[in-house]
Amino acid sequence: LTWHICTPRVINAEKSEFNEDQAACCQISIRRREPGLEEDEEWLILCSPQFLTGYYWALFDGHGGPEAAIIASNYLHYCIKQKLEAVVGGITEARPPMHLSGRCVCDSDPQFVEEKHIHAEDLVVGALENAFQECDEVIGQEMEATKQTGGCTALAALYFQGKLYVANAGDSRAILVLKDSVVPMSCEFTPETERQRIQHLAFLFPKLLDGEFTRFEFPRRLKGDDVGQKVLYRDYFMEGWGYKTVEKADLKYPLVHGHGKQARLLGTLAVSRGLGDHQLKVIDTNIEVKPFLSCIPKVNVFDFALHDIKEDDVLIMGTDGLWDVLSNKEVAHVVRSFLAENRTDPHRFSELAKCLVCRARGKQSGHQWMLDDSHEASYDDISVFVIPLHNRDEE
Amino acid sequence: LTWHICTPRVINAEKSEFNEDQAACCQISIRRREPGLEEDEEWLILCSPQFLTGYYWALFDGHGGPEAAIIASNYLHYCIKQKLEAVVGGITEARPPMHLSGRCVCDSDPQFVEEKHIHAEDLVVGALENAFQECDEVIGQEMEATKQTGGCTALAALYFQGKLYVANAGDSRAILVLKDSVVPMSCEFTPETERQRIQHLAFLFPKLLDGEFTRFEFPRRLKGDDVGQKVLYRDYFMEGWGYKTVEKADLKYPLVHGHGKQARLLGTLAVSRGLGDHQLKVIDTNIEVKPFLSCIPKVNVFDFALHDIKEDDVLIMGTDGLWDVLSNKEVAHVVRSFLAENRTDPHRFSELAKCLVCRARGKQSGHQWMLDDSHEASYDDISVFVIPLHNRDEE
Repeated sequence: LTWHICTPRVINAEKSEFNEDQAACCQISIRRREPGLEEDEEWLILCSPQFLTGYYWALFDGHGGPEAAIIASNYLHYCIKQKLEAVVGGITEARPPMHLSGRCVCDSDPQFVEEKHIHAEDLVVGALENAFQECDEVIGQEMEATKQTGGCTALAALYFQGKLYVANAGDSRAILVLKDSVVPMSCEFTPETERQRIQHLAFLFPKLLDGEFTRFEFPRRLKGDDVGQKVLYRDYFMEGWGYKTVEKADLKYPLVHGHGKQARLLGTLAVSRGLGDHQLKVIDTNIEVKPFLSCIPKVNVFDFALHDIKEDDVLIMGTDGLWDVLSNKEVAHVVRSFLAENRTDPHRFSELAKCLVCRARGKQSGHQWMLDDSHEASYDDISVFVIPLHNRDEE
Repeated sequence: LTWHICTPRVINAEKSEFNEDQAACCQISIRRREPGLEEDEEWLILCSPQFLTGYYWALFDGHGGPEAAIIASNYLHYCIKQKLEAVVGGITEARPPMHLSGRCVCDSDPQFVEEKHIHAEDLVVGALENAFQECDEVIGQEMEATKQTGGCTALAALYFQGKLYVANAGDSRAILVLKDSVVPMSCEFTPETERQRIQHLAFLFPKLLDGEFTRFEFPRRLKGDDVGQKVLYRDYFMEGWGYKTVEKADLKYPLVHGHGKQARLLGTLAVSRGLGDHQLKVIDTNIEVKPFLSCIPKVNVFDFALHDIKEDDVLIMGTDGLWDVLSNKEVAHVVRSFLAENRTDPHRFSELAKCLVCRARGKQSGHQWMLDDSHEASYDDISVFVIPLHNRDEE
């Protein structure tokens, strides 16, 4: 590795028997193929470097057991490697060619590609999107074969060809803490943030709810006294609210229910995207949760060529255990002051990761864990990566 | 009216026999109902003002004939009035009550409403969303009864209780031109901007394409020579691009095809949201376009209490005929210089609307219409509202 890799510090708050967070990091080497060369002509590129190198970090927050997170941490980088290798002939061009072979079927093909604004970067994004889908399938097969259950969120960062790609499916978070700014590199996917997508699916396929849930959102679970009254509600097409006359069917449990950290999909899951959960059913029913989950990540790209990266600039990746109790601003403050105070420590980035985890875990006081500011600390598993961005291409 | 209403200037570039743009503006008076009062107790509110007053402006850009736009211009304000009246008991409260009747079924109801961050503003947004749906149904009925066809985009602005609401379904646009800034109040919904929603629907319901279209996007229409080659493509879950080995089925016409103003949904429509089109089929097929269209607007809110509005600050609403040839920046420049040069003209806002339309229409030069900068002018219908924002609550 050309780069410090700081082991994440993973803490288990004894919420479950095993820590359900998993982490992975590695180098990803992509074998080059020049477009237009057949397999037997590949000696032609021996003069140019044979591999493109990427660096990969990922966090997986498991639920219903650690198995899905473990499989994801063992496979996602391999899926990414495969998907990148499948398009590598296009990535090495300034503009990807219309045909991966490099052959021009139609004279104006380069113009069509230009009109669509397709760049090499878009192939990396597409590869990450496809890799998450592939990894989800692998997890489905592995879990079925071994009769295991559960799922996990996935947050993956890839440094490749001078750009940082962050792909997120779930409620982990990545931010860049730079000298003068904080750049969010992901957003969270929860039953609350994805309410409209989830409700719309139930509108299109009502059978998925098997008559046990209502797709409408209400400020609280309704009860018998509410029937006949007009109460606040939202349907799939509404960002605003309206009033609906309550019928008996509205007393069913809501598809998306609860608020903030208590929000649940089908009363079951706190996240709406991630890998696994192929077998997950709502307790005591035949209702499958998977159709409402998405394994597709949202990918954000940061181009280092457009920024002047300073010595203490870092990428922070953390599972929700960190962000539940510390805001972006608070994390940035800890990062900047810790690095300023520990200028010479060769392990300062991994010490910073430890420091962030300890902050979020808090201190034991009687039966409770408390933060410095006397708010309650995180009871969730907490994992943090601190990845320095300066001198990233040096040996 | 307490406010200047500037008639929009509508120009027909002889593209079609009739101008397909329609405009509407009016006052909307909402009858107050105090929560908790029965019909027979309504004398109790005679002491307070009986009506809440809103002001409404809307532009409709018709296609396949002007009929849908005409019906929309006659009905949408009425649908909005009805939907606002249905929730008016909640709008008059600082926080809408859980129950429209004002009766508290559960002691902690106000807390549930607060936790969900529901404000009076959200009821207006919900009313606008519901009004667009209602208006779409009305158009469907009217068009069926009179055996007419066609559809239209809809851009509606509502000034109500100190806030400006802009609801948009289609490719018209509204911007605020303020002294020191330009605030976009809408975004465009086209087959290109809504590609993923449209492709996802085709993925969920492949029968909608009746074997005639492919849901994949390619940089250009594929042909026989491409079969067996790996070409650039995108599926519904991809913001990035990948390579796909072309099969014969990929030679079908793409669900979303073309680029920029040439982009088409099912080779038929240039917009992906709007009202009407209930009967629209792809030419020479039985494929319905309506399932892929959405009549749901995106609503943006501007709170005047948070801004210091200056004398020349205006809301500009225009159909795509304006924005195809003039950028937000160019329009803002015309607005500011025109108003600065015409300080005393009592009709300066309607003169400005005329001026903007003339700019976009350009000047005839031989067989062509040209802009001042010698680019080609708009050949589309062009409609513009200029709505002054200063002194808006004065008589």
